Amino acid sequence: MLRIAVLGVGRIGRMHAENIVAHPRATLAGVFDVYEPSAKEIAEKLDVTRFESAEAVFASPEVDAVLIATSTPTHADLLEKAVAAGKPVLCEKPIDLSLDRVNACATKIAGSSVPIMLGFVRRFDSGHRAVRNAVENGTIGDLHQVVITSRDPGMAPAAYIEMSGGIFRDMTIHDFDMARFILGEEITQVSATGSRLVDPALMEKCDDYDTVTVVLKTASGKQCTIGNSRRAVYGYDQRVEAFGSAGMAISENRTLNHLRLHTEDGTDRAAPLMNFFIDRYADAFAAEISAFVDAVEQGKAPEVGFEDGRQALLLAEAAIRSAAEGRTVNTSEIG
Amino acid sequence: MLRIAVLGVGRIGRMHAENIVAHPRATLAGVFDVYEPSAKEIAEKLDVTRFESAEAVFASPEVDAVLIATSTPTHADLLEKAVAAGKPVLCEKPIDLSLDRVNACATKIAGSSVPIMLGFVRRFDSGHRAVRNAVENGTIGDLHQVVITSRDPGMAPAAYIEMSGGIFRDMTIHDFDMARFILGEEITQVSATGSRLVDPALMEKCDDYDTVTVVLKTASGKQCTIGNSRRAVYGYDQRVEAFGSAGMAISENRTLNHLRLHTEDGTDRAAPLMNFFIDRYADAFAAEISAFVDAVEQGKAPEVGFEDGRQALLLAEAAIRSAAEGRTVNTSEIG
Amino acid sequence: MLRIAVLGVGRIGRMHAENIVAHPRATLAGVFDVYEPSAKEIAEKLDVTRFESAEAVFASPEVDAVLIATSTPTHADLLEKAVAAGKPVLCEKPIDLSLDRVNACATKIAGSSVPIMLGFVRRFDSGHRAVRNAVENGTIGDLHQVVITSRDPGMAPAAYIEMSGGIFRDMTIHDFDMARFILGEEITQVSATGSRLVDPALMEKCDDYDTVTVVLKTASGKQCTIGNSRRAVYGYDQRVEAFGSAGMAISENRTLNHLRLHTEDGTDRAAPLMNFFIDRYADAFAAEISAFVDAVEQGKAPEVGFEDGRQALLLAEAAIRSAAEGRTVNTSEIG
Amino acid sequence: MLRIAVLGVGRIGRMHAENIVAHPRATLAGVFDVYEPSAKEIAEKLDVTRFESAEAVFASPEVDAVLIATSTPTHADLLEKAVAAGKPVLCEKPIDLSLDRVNACATKIAGSSVPIMLGFVRRFDSGHRAVRNAVENGTIGDLHQVVITSRDPGMAPAAYIEMSGGIFRDMTIHDFDMARFILGEEITQVSATGSRLVDPALMEKCDDYDTVTVVLKTASGKQCTIGNSRRAVYGYDQRVEAFGSAGMAISENRTLNHLRLHTEDGTDRAAPLMNFFIDRYADAFAAEISAFVDAVEQGKAPEVGFEDGRQALLLAEAAIRSAAEGRTVNTSEIG
Repeated sequence: MLRIAVLGVGRIGRMHAENIVAHPRATLAGVFDVYEPSAKEIAEKLDVTRFESAEAVFASPEVDAVLIATSTPTHADLLEKAVAAGKPVLCEKPIDLSLDRVNACATKIAGSSVPIMLGFVRRFDSGHRAVRNAVENGTIGDLHQVVITSRDPGMAPAAYIEMSGGIFRDMTIHDFDMARFILGEEITQVSATGSRLVDPALMEKCDDYDTVTVVLKTASGKQCTIGNSRRAVYGYDQRVEAFGSAGMAISENRTLNHLRLHTEDGTDRAAPLMNFFIDRYADAFAAEISAFVDAVEQGKAPEVGFEDGRQALLLAEAAIRSAAEGRTVNTSEIG
Repeated sequence: MLRIAVLGVGRIGRMHAENIVAHPRATLAGVFDVYEPSAKEIAEKLDVTRFESAEAVFASPEVDAVLIATSTPTHADLLEKAVAAGKPVLCEKPIDLSLDRVNACATKIAGSSVPIMLGFVRRFDSGHRAVRNAVENGTIGDLHQVVITSRDPGMAPAAYIEMSGGIFRDMTIHDFDMARFILGEEITQVSATGSRLVDPALMEKCDDYDTVTVVLKTASGKQCTIGNSRRAVYGYDQRVEAFGSAGMAISENRTLNHLRLHTEDGTDRAAPLMNFFIDRYADAFAAEISAFVDAVEQGKAPEVGFEDGRQALLLAEAAIRSAAEGRTVNTSEIG
Repeated sequence: MLRIAVLGVGRIGRMHAENIVAHPRATLAGVFDVYEPSAKEIAEKLDVTRFESAEAVFASPEVDAVLIATSTPTHADLLEKAVAAGKPVLCEKPIDLSLDRVNACATKIAGSSVPIMLGFVRRFDSGHRAVRNAVENGTIGDLHQVVITSRDPGMAPAAYIEMSGGIFRDMTIHDFDMARFILGEEITQVSATGSRLVDPALMEKCDDYDTVTVVLKTASGKQCTIGNSRRAVYGYDQRVEAFGSAGMAISENRTLNHLRLHTEDGTDRAAPLMNFFIDRYADAFAAEISAFVDAVEQGKAPEVGFEDGRQALLLAEAAIRSAAEGRTVNTSEIG
Repeated sequence: MLRIAVLGVGRIGRMHAENIVAHPRATLAGVFDVYEPSAKEIAEKLDVTRFESAEAVFASPEVDAVLIATSTPTHADLLEKAVAAGKPVLCEKPIDLSLDRVNACATKIAGSSVPIMLGFVRRFDSGHRAVRNAVENGTIGDLHQVVITSRDPGMAPAAYIEMSGGIFRDMTIHDFDMARFILGEEITQVSATGSRLVDPALMEKCDDYDTVTVVLKTASGKQCTIGNSRRAVYGYDQRVEAFGSAGMAISENRTLNHLRLHTEDGTDRAAPLMNFFIDRYADAFAAEISAFVDAVEQGKAPEVGFEDGRQALLLAEAAIRSAAEGRTVNTSEIG
C-alpha cells in the first residue's frame, strides 16, 4: 500500500484524499492545510493524521508520497521540498504562473530521480484517451488536424479571475497539454486571438480575455485549434477531435445520464451535460491517482511529468505574446 | 417515356401526378376525378388532359399505365378494369377493406400478366430499405427479432376514423407489410392487443383502438413487434429495428434538417421530426414511381404486388380476431 | 455506520462487498460462504471477519444488516432467518424459482417490520430512473406504451441455463420488474411468445427459449413490450422507452467511453457497449447499496420490497403459461 | 414562368439545367457550351434550344435570365455582358480568381439594377440555414464563436488543383462566405496557416496547401475558425457550429440514409456520409434556383449578391497573405 499525504484540502484536495482512500493499493497517510479548520475537518472525517506543517509531512517516515493541492503560488516550493525529501509527488497544475520560476524549479530538481507527476487530469479521461489511442495505434492514420473545444459552464468569481494569471495560463493550459497529448509531436508555432464577450468589464479590468481561439502547429505541419469560452450556458463543453489520413476520432461530451427526451419542444434531447469539472472528470481523477500509484510502485516515469507542466506554460506564454502582437509566435522565442 | 394517367387527384393523387411529371422516363398522360373541379384544377396546372371517366382512361391509346389514388371503396373495381384493359397499374393501398372483396378480385385477375403494383410506399424509404438489405445480405446474420414503431403525429379527423375500417386495417396495415418486407418469411401467428388512450370516446363510438401492440411470428420462430399510436406529440415516429445473430440494424427517424441545438433547456436537441407522411416519405414516393416505371419498362414483376396487398389485409383480419379473443391467431384460420 | 455482512461471495457477492467497503456510511461486517476458500480469500483481501456459518452471522451483535448473494435455492431460507433474527436484509433476486415457495415465505414473514429489499438493480440505473421520473413528473404526460429491450451479450453456460428456471424466471424477470417500475400500475394481462434461435439444441433439451417477446397490459390499457435475446453480438443491449400523451423518454445504451469514430468503414461509430452486467450497472449497484443503507438508517420501506420480488415471479409464471397455451393470461389466474 | 438559359453544361451546369426543368415557376430557355457536343447532348436530352454563342443567349427575347456555369476565367466577362443585356444572372462562384478583375467588374456594373446572384449554394442548406436562423432569432443569444469544418472526400485531380488558384480561393472561399453568412458582421482580421499533408509533392509543385486552418475576427470580437482538408476518407465532412451567450447550434453531417448499424465491429455506426457535393447539397442547389426565381419575379435583391462574391475573394487574399507572412492581416490592407 502506497501511503500518500495530501497537502491542501480545499475542494480539489478533498476529492483527491477521498480517491486515495478508495484506491485499493493506496492509503491516505494524512493531510495538511495552512487553514487549520479545513485540515481538522478532513482529518477527522477520514480518520487520518493531521500534519502540523508541510515540513512535518516531508519528514515523516509514514509518508511514501505526497499530493500537492495547495494554492498555486506554493506549488513550486513544495515540489522542490518534496523532491529534496525524496518523496514522489503528484502536483496539481500549474507548477507556477511564472515561466522563470518554473525554469528555476527545473534547475533545482535537475538530476533527481524522484518521480514527479503533473495533474493534467484530462489525459486520464476515457474518451480523450481513446482519441489518443486512435492516433497512436494508427486507426485514423497520420494525424493532420486536432480540434479541442473547451468551454466552462460559468465564469469563475471575479476574485479568482483576477488572480488566475489570465485565461491562457489558467484555462487554456489544460488544452495546451491536451494538444501535446494528442499531437504526439512538439508544437513550434502558436497563433492566438482573444475577445471580451462574456464579461467585457471584468476582462477590461484584468486585461484578460474570456473567449479565445488558438492555433498551434508542429514542425511537420500538424495543426491544432483550441476554442475556449469562460461560459457555456448548456454546460461544461469538453470535446476533442482528431482528424487524420485514415479517419477521425471524436471524444464527445458526457451527460448526467443516458436519457433522450422527445416532446413537442424538440426531438431527441439529451440529459444535461455534466456541469462541474469534478463530476465531469470524476473517473479521470480516480484514474490519475491510479496512474501515480502505478508509476511509484513500478518505478517508472509518470505519464505526465514536470516537463509537460513546463511546456504547457511555455505555450501559454507564446499565446499571450501572439494575441498581443497579432502574429504567429515561434515557441523557440519563449524560454 | 411511360405515359401514366392518374385516377383520383386528392392530396395523394396530386403528389403522385407531380412525381410522374418530374420523372425522367415518365409523362403524365392525364387525370380523372369524380369531383370535376379537382380534376380541372390539376389538369390545368400541370397542362394535361382531363379524362371524363375512368372508362375513358382505360380506353385511351395515349395511356400506357394507370395509377389508382381514388377513394378506397373504388380501388378493387378500377383495378379489375385496368387489368381487363391491359393497363399496368399502380394501386394505392388498401385494395379493399374487405378480405372477401380482395379475394374475389384476386380470382377475377388470376392468370393475367398485366403488372400490378401496390402502393406500400414505406418499402421505398432509404432507411427502411437499408435495414432490409442488412438482413438480405447477411450483415446482421440470421434474423431473430424485428421491432416496428409507427406512431402518427396526430389523430385523423373523426369522420376519417369512422370510415377507416379500424386501426389494424387502416394504419397497422403499413406495418404488416413492413414486417413481411423485413422478415422475408411468411407470418404464421398473430397476437394483438388494443387500448383506447388517445381519444377514448371516439374509440368507444367506433369500437376501435388508438393504441395497439401486435406480435407476429413466422414458422421458423422469427418474432416481430409492432407498436402503433394515433398520436405522438413529438412528430411522425417511424422506426424499424432488425436484430439478428450478427448484429442489429435500425432505421431511425428523420428530422426537418440536421440542426442540433444546445441550450440551458437541454443538450443536443434535434430539429423536429418530419411531421406529415407526404414529407416524411417524399423520397420514397418518388422512388415508388421509379420502381413502377422500371417494372413496366423492363417487363418484370413489380416489387410489391397484389398478393402483398392481400397478405397485409389478412394479417389485419388476424389481428382484429386476436385482440377480440385474447389469443394467438394462426394466419391459416383466416381466408 | 451500518455494519453489513455479505452471505455468498461469488462474483456478485464480492462486488457487493467492495461497494459496501467503499460506501461512506456502511462497513463490511464480515462474509460467509459455504465454499470456505472463497470466503477466506475475500475476508483476507478486505480485512474482515469470516463467519463460520449463516447462523453465526444472524447471531452476531456486530452485524446490523445482511446482504444475501448466495445461490438462488438458499435465498428464501436465509431471508426467513434474517427476518427472524431482526436483521434488515438486501436479497439478490429471485426470492425463489417457485412461486409456491415465495408465497410460503411471504406467509412466514408476514407482520414483521424488518426491512427487506430485493436486488432489482436496474431500478437504480440513472437512465432508467430518469425515464421513470419523466413518467412520474408528467414530462411525457399520461403513459401509453413502454418498450423494454434487454439482450444479453452472450449465452450463459449450458449448466447455468439448465438450472436457471427458464428464460422468463431468470432473465425476463428483470424486465418484469422494470415494467412495473415504469408503468406504475399493476399488470393484469400477459401475452408471451418464445423461440429457439440462438442455441436451438440446448433450448430443446431444456424445454426453454432463448428469444422471447412479451406484451403486458394494465387495467387502464397501458401496454408494455419486452424483447429478450440470450445473445446480442454487439454487446449488452439495455434500453427502456416510455411513450405518453406528451412525449417519449428513452434510456439509451451505455458505451465504454464517449469516442465516436469515423473511417472508411463507417461514420460516427460509437465505442463498444459495456458488455458485462457488473460493468454496465456498476453505478446502479453502488446506488442500490446506498438506497439500502438509507432505508435502514431512516427506518423507511426500501424502494424495492419483497412483494416486488413476488410480483415479478408471478408475471414470469403468467408468461410461461401464455407461451405454452398461445393465449393472453390474466394475472388473476396465477397465485 | 421565368425562362432561364444555362451557359456551360459541364457537371454543375447540367445539374442546374435539370433543377430549372423541375422548378414549378421556371423553364429552361436553352443551353450554350463552347464544347458543342456537350451542349448538343443536353439540348436533346432536355428538349431545349442549343444556342450558338453566349451572345445569342444575351440577345434572345426568349431568355429572361441566365445562369453562368462556364469555366471560372469566363465568369466576369459573361456576367458583364449579361448585365449589359439586362438579363438577371445567377453566376457560379468565384466571380474571378483575381481580386483586381473582380473590382474592375464591380466598377463596370456599378449603377445597374439587374439582379445578380452568386452561387454560394451552402447558404441554402437546411441545416446551415437553421444555424443562421438560430443566430438571427436570438436562440443562442449573442454570437461568440463559429467553427466551420469543411473537408473534401478526396483530392481533386492534379490538373484541377493546378488551375484552382490555390486552396484559399478554390475551397476555403465557400467557408469564407459561410462565415460571413453566420457571423452577420464584417470580418476585420484574418489569420491563416497551411500545411502539406495529403499530397506534399503536388502541393510543393503548386506552392499550395492541402490542409489549412483559418481564424477570422470581427470588429466586435466574434471569432470564427475554419478547418479544411482536401481529403477526408470517411466522406464529405460539412459541419457548422455557432456558439453564443445562450447556447450552441450545430449543423451536422448528412448521411446517405438513416440506418444505424450495430455489430461486433462497433456500435451505432451511421450510414456513409454523402460523398459528392452535388448529392450532399442537392436540396440546396434546388433551393438556390428557387431563391433566384423568387428574387427575379419579386424584383428584390438576391440573397447572395456580387459584393458577397467579392468579399469572399478578399478574405481569400487576406488568408494567402497571412499564411505567407505568419501574421494577422487586417482586411483593410486588401483591395
